[in-house]
Amino acid sequence: MSDTATVVFTPTGLRGEFPLGTSVLQAAQQLGVDLESSCGGRGICGRCQVMHSVGEFPKHGINSLAEHLSPPTEREEGKNNEVLRHGRRLGCSAQILGDMVVDVPSDSQIHKQHIVKEATAVEIDHDPAVKLFTVQVPPPNMDEPQSDLRRVQQILLDQHHVQAISTDLSVLQALQPALDRAERQITVAVYHDTEDQNQIMAVWPGVKERVYGLAVDLGSTTVAAHLCDLTSRDVVSSSSVMNPQIRFGEDLMSRVSYVMMNDGGDREMTQAVRQAFNEMAKDAAEKAGIKLADILELTVVCNPIMHHLFLGIDPTPLGSAPFALATDRPVTVRSAELDIHLHPQARCFVLPCIAGHIGADTAGVILAERPDQADEITLIVDVGTNAEVVLGNKDRLLAASSPTGPAFEGAQISCGQRAATGAIERVRVDPETLEPRFKVIGCDLWSDDPGFAEHTRKIGISGVCGSGIIEVLAELFLAGVIDSDGVIDPAMAEKSPRVIANERTFSYVLYEGDKTLQITQNDVRAIQLAKSALYAGTQLLLDHLGITKVDRISLAGAFGSHIDVKYAMVLGLIPDCNLANVGPVGNAAGTGARIALLDRSKRNEIEQVLRRVEKIETATEAKFQDHFVKSMAFPHLTDQFIELAKEVQLPERRVVNASGGTGRRRRRVRKAS
Amino acid sequence: MSDTATVVFTPTGLRGEFPLGTSVLQAAQQLGVDLESSCGGRGICGRCQVMHSVGEFPKHGINSLAEHLSPPTEREEGKNNEVLRHGRRLGCSAQILGDMVVDVPSDSQIHKQHIVKEATAVEIDHDPAVKLFTVQVPPPNMDEPQSDLRRVQQILLDQHHVQAISTDLSVLQALQPALDRAERQITVAVYHDTEDQNQIMAVWPGVKERVYGLAVDLGSTTVAAHLCDLTSRDVVSSSSVMNPQIRFGEDLMSRVSYVMMNDGGDREMTQAVRQAFNEMAKDAAEKAGIKLADILELTVVCNPIMHHLFLGIDPTPLGSAPFALATDRPVTVRSAELDIHLHPQARCFVLPCIAGHIGADTAGVILAERPDQADEITLIVDVGTNAEVVLGNKDRLLAASSPTGPAFEGAQISCGQRAATGAIERVRVDPETLEPRFKVIGCDLWSDDPGFAEHTRKIGISGVCGSGIIEVLAELFLAGVIDSDGVIDPAMAEKSPRVIANERTFSYVLYEGDKTLQITQNDVRAIQLAKSALYAGTQLLLDHLGITKVDRISLAGAFGSHIDVKYAMVLGLIPDCNLANVGPVGNAAGTGARIALLDRSKRNEIEQVLRRVEKIETATEAKFQDHFVKSMAFPHLTDQFIELAKEVQLPERRVVNASGGTGRRRRRVRKAS
Repeated sequence: MSDTATVVFTPTGLRGEFPLGTSVLQAAQQLGVDLESSCGGRGICGRCQVMHSVGEFPKHGINSLAEHLSPPTEREEGKNNEVLRHGRRLGCSAQILGDMVVDVPSDSQIHKQHIVKEATAVEIDHDPAVKLFTVQVPPPNMDEPQSDLRRVQQILLDQHHVQAISTDLSVLQALQPALDRAERQITVAVYHDTEDQNQIMAVWPGVKERVYGLAVDLGSTTVAAHLCDLTSRDVVSSSSVMNPQIRFGEDLMSRVSYVMMNDGGDREMTQAVRQAFNEMAKDAAEKAGIKLADILELTVVCNPIMHHLFLGIDPTPLGSAPFALATDRPVTVRSAELDIHLHPQARCFVLPCIAGHIGADTAGVILAERPDQADEITLIVDVGTNAEVVLGNKDRLLAASSPTGPAFEGAQISCGQRAATGAIERVRVDPETLEPRFKVIGCDLWSDDPGFAEHTRKIGISGVCGSGIIEVLAELFLAGVIDSDGVIDPAMAEKSPRVIANERTFSYVLYEGDKTLQITQNDVRAIQLAKSALYAGTQLLLDHLGITKVDRISLAGAFGSHIDVKYAMVLGLIPDCNLANVGPVGNAAGTGARIALLDRSKRNEIEQVLRRVEKIETATEAKFQDHFVKSMAFPHLTDQFIELAKEVQLPERRVVNASGGTGRRRRRVRKAS
Repeated sequence: MSDTATVVFTPTGLRGEFPLGTSVLQAAQQLGVDLESSCGGRGICGRCQVMHSVGEFPKHGINSLAEHLSPPTEREEGKNNEVLRHGRRLGCSAQILGDMVVDVPSDSQIHKQHIVKEATAVEIDHDPAVKLFTVQVPPPNMDEPQSDLRRVQQILLDQHHVQAISTDLSVLQALQPALDRAERQITVAVYHDTEDQNQIMAVWPGVKERVYGLAVDLGSTTVAAHLCDLTSRDVVSSSSVMNPQIRFGEDLMSRVSYVMMNDGGDREMTQAVRQAFNEMAKDAAEKAGIKLADILELTVVCNPIMHHLFLGIDPTPLGSAPFALATDRPVTVRSAELDIHLHPQARCFVLPCIAGHIGADTAGVILAERPDQADEITLIVDVGTNAEVVLGNKDRLLAASSPTGPAFEGAQISCGQRAATGAIERVRVDPETLEPRFKVIGCDLWSDDPGFAEHTRKIGISGVCGSGIIEVLAELFLAGVIDSDGVIDPAMAEKSPRVIANERTFSYVLYEGDKTLQITQNDVRAIQLAKSALYAGTQLLLDHLGITKVDRISLAGAFGSHIDVKYAMVLGLIPDCNLANVGPVGNAAGTGARIALLDRSKRNEIEQVLRRVEKIETATEAKFQDHFVKSMAFPHLTDQFIELAKEVQLPERRVVNASGGTGRRRRRVRKAS
């Protein structure tokens, strides 16, 4: 019998020849197989789990007998962390006694790509800023008088190649008691900051297996958090709360006004939003069954005004030109400094804002979508109260913010409401009869399906949400009820009783029940103003880039996820593009926060990307107004929608005249802008 | 007339030819003349002050006429910071209009060596961790939307070559209000940490000229602070308080016992000492007429137990073998984290401890004395309750701590007391008559001077302090009253009524007044035990270094400053050495704290030096006991004091026998050890 054995690792197929008695972990490390180990192969961490594949493997030319692996050690059997369930073994304890095939399960691989299940599924590399290391610290020795901290630092360097120079004071205070409690075995958390410095931020006696991070998308209306296991990368729970600042003002500018009018108003709003973070973190921790103290990091994306208010910076300068940010650098602080109570030494990383109107939320979107890495020209649109627009590819990247106002969210619309149960979200209008059918949030049936009335009796039909408004307007436009300039055609009143006169203009009755839901001429105007701002902003970026057509359009955010992209293009919210390349990308800003949480290296990377971003200020570009006026028409006064026309029968350009002449109407539309 | 002029700078003598109209600052910078400027030559900081030397200078070949310098500008005249007093000019505003001699006053020089006046005078290079920079920040500009922070960072880099990446949250909060208040002129404080990172830690509107640092020597008994101007390096005030921990235990071990016996005792002591820091800082600030918020840094030296209690680390492990320190690294924290209230973002730098018994105070001593840079072998002795001993030169450096106990401080001595008014501090004994004469703290007269009784009536004569005890014992030994083994000779009772029987031993009556002050046999024993511990510790280090003689002895600390080194050597506190090379070095530990405060580069340097220090643990060295026993004799049982004998007539080795035989006495001495 030979004194070496052939070992093949699956799934990689890496193989090698090793002396009998070599541990599976050693063999894996020599071959460069991805096999995790955080304790330096001392049977402590339980992460180097492998499966011995027993049997004849002709493909590898190996007869992998059960006795070719050493029997389980006491250390393995004594593990109460279920290492050996499903026949798994610790790679560090299992010795090679003959030829074998060894499988490395995916959860034992270090560099694996990972699909996060909740929220937007996305591949995130795993390199969190907070990492755990379980170490056995040698006892103090008077002949080599070193401090316990130095021994810990030395072992981190020797076993894990981590040079951790600085140490939080609380770690100094907790270190020796922790060493005492578990026979000098401790787990330390090391924080790797954006300056490439490692800090020992926490210590626990014995083995600590899991710590968590919270990725937060701080919106003007909603604050949403995903609690992630920093070891496994899984989203273990999610939580969201209303942004309590709403009581100070519905939209951003009214909150800035509140600060300007009320001494200490900024502090009130800062406290309110931080309190929301605390509640949300508590909720997420409870849902996941973990302690708040096990949350070691927080990453945050948000718009500039939320950013300043969250950090306790007066947002007043952002309320008027020149819209100067206090900082457009990433911010790292202790959560405790923000009165957010997680682990006492938890860090908070806030992604950088880009410009006065373009926030860390857009930074998150770019981080999630990486238009800067693509050849094709991508347009990313994130619609909220402002719409952020990003355009470009690996060569150039531009960003702007367009003042769309809240119409897309259902505000300023007579029948509008937030996307909630009872809101009409889908609409079809029969082009012949002009009769609508629709769907309501909370019910899977269409309004002309049997049983719809019964199903919706309880939930009620209370209004139309953003996506419903886009659909009804687009359908009315396609059906000829609304002309290219957005006028509800008085002539249609003869064709259908749903088109009714309303003083000097006309309305379309979408629903009559407990409540009557009408689309008025003013509602159409509100959407026109919003979509013109969005389209004009996009057009400015296209001008700056010197192109007329984009390869791909990504719609970020909740609105982008719910609207039908075809209808958005019919109304001219977005420019013409092959519809196959237009689609929602989910909560990309929140995904950016998660990426920053789980992959530290992206923090500096995104800052480098943002430095290259050309910021276009819509407020000061003379051409914006010109684009804005031309964008009022559906889908646009002059731009052609060739790609869209392949999919949708667009009406001929047609401008009705409430009293006969087209010219007069067009002028009136211009005035409305 | 030529269109260039010759300019000579004094005191350096650097000279050059410059186009007419060149500013004096530009000329200085081109020649590499040390002329300070922190505002980039914009007339803001007022630091580039120069004096135009008017007259004929044959030595330089220059006729330096008054009109060869441009007249004072409005900016200079408008200065309310007395720039122009004594005829000074701002180098940045004054233009060269002809040949001239320009003097750079010492306070305008950047790299000058500086003599600190208070406390121990010492040369300290000037490179504080906290530096001020006054900058004029360009206004925000929508065409180049950068945050205000980034503009500040850019200007720091461009004008001062300071790359300040990270920024305290409070600076982000204060930045824009500060920019608003003084037309975008601000002063920032940049903290340069031991990891070589620059952090913007504070911001003020307009020009901030001075900030301060506090260097603290935290002793078991006394906490002493020097408040230093970080710009000028001057000590502007000093303050000291009793260490309030004394109420928990007089000496270190009794404080550790208090922690072990009382739950929460460590927290009580931590709070007490931090409170003392707050009081001391307040006192120092008031004395200097500055605000606490103008103190931006604190440096601290202390022994290991004080170190742990100050930082809130349980000192119990330091109370017993193996005396494991929690950390022997330097510690940098926010003062606020220690509940010390200076500037809200003030930093605290605690020098590193060396080993369980050898503290940051010894690190301070090494930093002040730099034995590691010398060729000659230096012995440094810092006597307190423990004596720290450092021995070596640039090749090797060793350190130990010897358990001398508090006898040198007057404790354990029947007539002993702290060095305070009324304590006998100097003693001479007539070798013939055995009559003493002495001096008392608070009176400049010797006891046999006319008027002594009158002068001392008010202050009283209450006891003998440490230096007085050393002197009286040494004088009694030289006069033959005490033999080489420390026995008070019964035969002397016949020679002088001052030697009296006291049960089975004899005493020497030093003073009879309101109080009788005697030197008893037990007092001699107490000093013998203390000095044996000290000498044995020194001897261990000599053994390790393989030498028998040192080139220089430095006595650090208050005791070292007050004792007469000759008497210390007569008694064998310190080994034989040329007396010309033996002397006090003042409060070297406190000086070390000041050096660390004013010269940032020394912080890493001292850590490197300390890594090389060989720590000798007296408790576990077998030879310590042997050395200890031999060191009981005056000056030593076997070691020769050849250098001392050149200066002092040492008595022949002589051992009296209270009942006749020398052998028996010597054995009794050994038992006493």
